[in-house]
Amino acid sequence: MKIAVAGWGRLGKAIADTVSLYPDIELEYIFSRREGIEKTYRGAKILPFMNIEDYREKVDCLIISQGSAVDLPKNAPRLASVFNTVDGYDMHSAIPGYHTQMDEAARFGNKLSLIASGWDPGFFSVIRVYLSAFMPDAESATFWGEGISQGHSEAIRRINGVIDAVQYTIPDEDERERALRGEKTSPKLSHKRICYVAAEQGNEPRIEAEIRNMDGYFKGYRTEIYFTDPEDVRSRTASLFHGGEVIAARAHEDGITEVDLSLRLASNPHFTARILLASARAVYRMHTEGRTGAVTLADIPPKMLISESIYKYI
Amino acid sequence: MKIAVAGWGRLGKAIADTVSLYPDIELEYIFSRREGIEKTYRGAKILPFMNIEDYREKVDCLIISQGSAVDLPKNAPRLASVFNTVDGYDMHSAIPGYHTQMDEAARFGNKLSLIASGWDPGFFSVIRVYLSAFMPDAESATFWGEGISQGHSEAIRRINGVIDAVQYTIPDEDERERALRGEKTSPKLSHKRICYVAAEQGNEPRIEAEIRNMDGYFKGYRTEIYFTDPEDVRSRTASLFHGGEVIAARAHEDGITEVDLSLRLASNPHFTARILLASARAVYRMHTEGRTGAVTLADIPPKMLISESIYKYI
Repeated sequence: MKIAVAGWGRLGKAIADTVSLYPDIELEYIFSRREGIEKTYRGAKILPFMNIEDYREKVDCLIISQGSAVDLPKNAPRLASVFNTVDGYDMHSAIPGYHTQMDEAARFGNKLSLIASGWDPGFFSVIRVYLSAFMPDAESATFWGEGISQGHSEAIRRINGVIDAVQYTIPDEDERERALRGEKTSPKLSHKRICYVAAEQGNEPRIEAEIRNMDGYFKGYRTEIYFTDPEDVRSRTASLFHGGEVIAARAHEDGITEVDLSLRLASNPHFTARILLASARAVYRMHTEGRTGAVTLADIPPKMLISESIYKYI
Repeated sequence: MKIAVAGWGRLGKAIADTVSLYPDIELEYIFSRREGIEKTYRGAKILPFMNIEDYREKVDCLIISQGSAVDLPKNAPRLASVFNTVDGYDMHSAIPGYHTQMDEAARFGNKLSLIASGWDPGFFSVIRVYLSAFMPDAESATFWGEGISQGHSEAIRRINGVIDAVQYTIPDEDERERALRGEKTSPKLSHKRICYVAAEQGNEPRIEAEIRNMDGYFKGYRTEIYFTDPEDVRSRTASLFHGGEVIAARAHEDGITEVDLSLRLASNPHFTARILLASARAVYRMHTEGRTGAVTLADIPPKMLISESIYKYI
C-alpha cells in the first residue's frame, strides 16, 4: 500500500524514519507547508501542502501528522473527504465533536478516517476499554510522564507572542499508589504540568493566563510556568523520552486484582509513528472491505493492525 | 441478553457469581453433567447437560466453561452449530485446528463462536497483537504466574490413575529481566511448572511420564512432579491467586522502549469469568449484525465488549 504524510515536523519525520519496519507500506509523498526544504527524504517526494489534493488517486492512506490545537480541526475534515486518513487528534474532551465532523466528511467522500490514534488517545484508549469490559467493578486511572507532551508544547507555541515552548508532564506518585490499591484518583490531581516558555517581552502575564485557561490542556491541572530564553527551551526539547501507565485495580476480601499497563519510550514521536503506521494499514484494509466514515482504534479488530497470522500471538 | 453456562465447575460458578456486574446480561440456565445437585443457583435453573439442545431457542449466547484437554474438543463443535458460544479453549498450539472445526460448525448453524477467550489466550493474545503491530522491531515475551494453572491442573487430572492434581506456574526472574532489556527469551525456559499429584498407588512412573510428554502443556518445560495425598492437593487448590505479564522491549541508542502489561489476580476464575461475560456480550451483538463462524478476541472491535459510550475511555 502507498501512503503519504501531511505535516513535516518531528512526527512526520519519525514516520518517514520508521516506515521501513512495515514492509507492506511505502511512503510516497510528504506534504509540507514550509518552503525551501529538500525535495526528497528517504525516497519520498516532498511536495507543497497546497497541492495535496492533486494526489488523491495516488495514495491509499494519508497520515495527517499535524497539531491538534489548530491544524487538524482546520485541515483534516477537508482531507478526510478525499483521502483515507489517520490522525493523532489528542484533545480528549473535543474528540466527540471532531469525530462527528470527520465522520460526515469521510462518508461524503466514501473514505475511511481513523481519528485520535497514537498512544493516548489510541493504544491507552483501547486498554481502558478492555479494562472497563473485564473489570467493570474496578477503578481505573491513567498516568502520563515523566516526559514532554508534544501536544501541550505545540498548544503553547500557538499562543500569540510565544517564541518557543516545552511542557513536561509529571505523574504524582501518591495518586499512583492509590490507583494500585483500587482507590479513586483524579486525573487532574494526578499530574503536574511544567511549562518552559520563551516569549516576546511584555507578553508574559497574558500568555501565562492563556496557558492556564486552555480547556482540555491546562485548565484545572497543577501547572507551573517558567519564562526563559529560546536557547533553554531548545535544549530541553531535545529529550524525546516519555512514558505512561494505565492502572485498573479492585480490592477484594481475598486480595487485590490489578492490571497495569506501563510504557517507557525512548522516543515519543517514534513510538507514535509506529502506531500511526499500523493504523494506516488497518484503515486501508477496512476501506478495501467497504468500511467508510470516521472510526477510532476501539472500532478496529486488533488483527487488522498486523500483517502476520494471528496464530503467532494467540 | 440471555445466556447459559455449560459446565458447573469453579469457572461456571465464578460466572454465575459475577454476572450481576453486567446489567445487560441475564444468566438463565446452568447445564451440568453432575447429578443430585441443587436445582437453582442465584436464580438460574440448573439442568442436565444432556438436554442442552432443547434450550437452543432460549439462549442468546452459551458460555462453555469446560476443560480444554477433553471436554471442549468433544462438546464444543456440536454446541457451536446450535448456539452462539464463548469458550476458553487454552491449548495454544492446538488452537488453529480447533478454530477450523469450530468455524465450520458455527457456519453450518449460522451461529457465531468466540473461541480461546480468557486472559491467556484472550486478553494477552490481543495485547501481543497490539505490541507486534506497534513495536515490530521489539522482542516480546509472556510470563505466567506465580499461580495455579487451572488448565494444566485439569489436564493432569484427566490422566488415568490420577485422583487429584494441582499445577503451579512460576516465572523465571532472570528471563523476565532479559525481556525488559529487549533481549530474546524462551517461553519454555521462562517458567517452572510444579505439579502436586495424588495418584492411585503403583501408577506413579507411568503418570509422571504421561505428564512430562503432554504436548502443549508440559513437554519441553522445566517440570517438577511431586506425588502426595488427596488432602494435600485439595488444600493447595484453595488458592485462586494468579498473575501474568506481557513484555515487549527494544533497546535503542537513546534508551529503551518498553511496554509491560502485568496482571495480579486475587481469583483466576473470577477474572476469567469477567472476560467470558464481556465476550458473550460482543458475540451476541456481532451475531445480531450478521457475523457467523468462529472468531477470537483479535477479531472483535474492542468497543463491542462494553455497553457504555466509547468517549468515556478515549
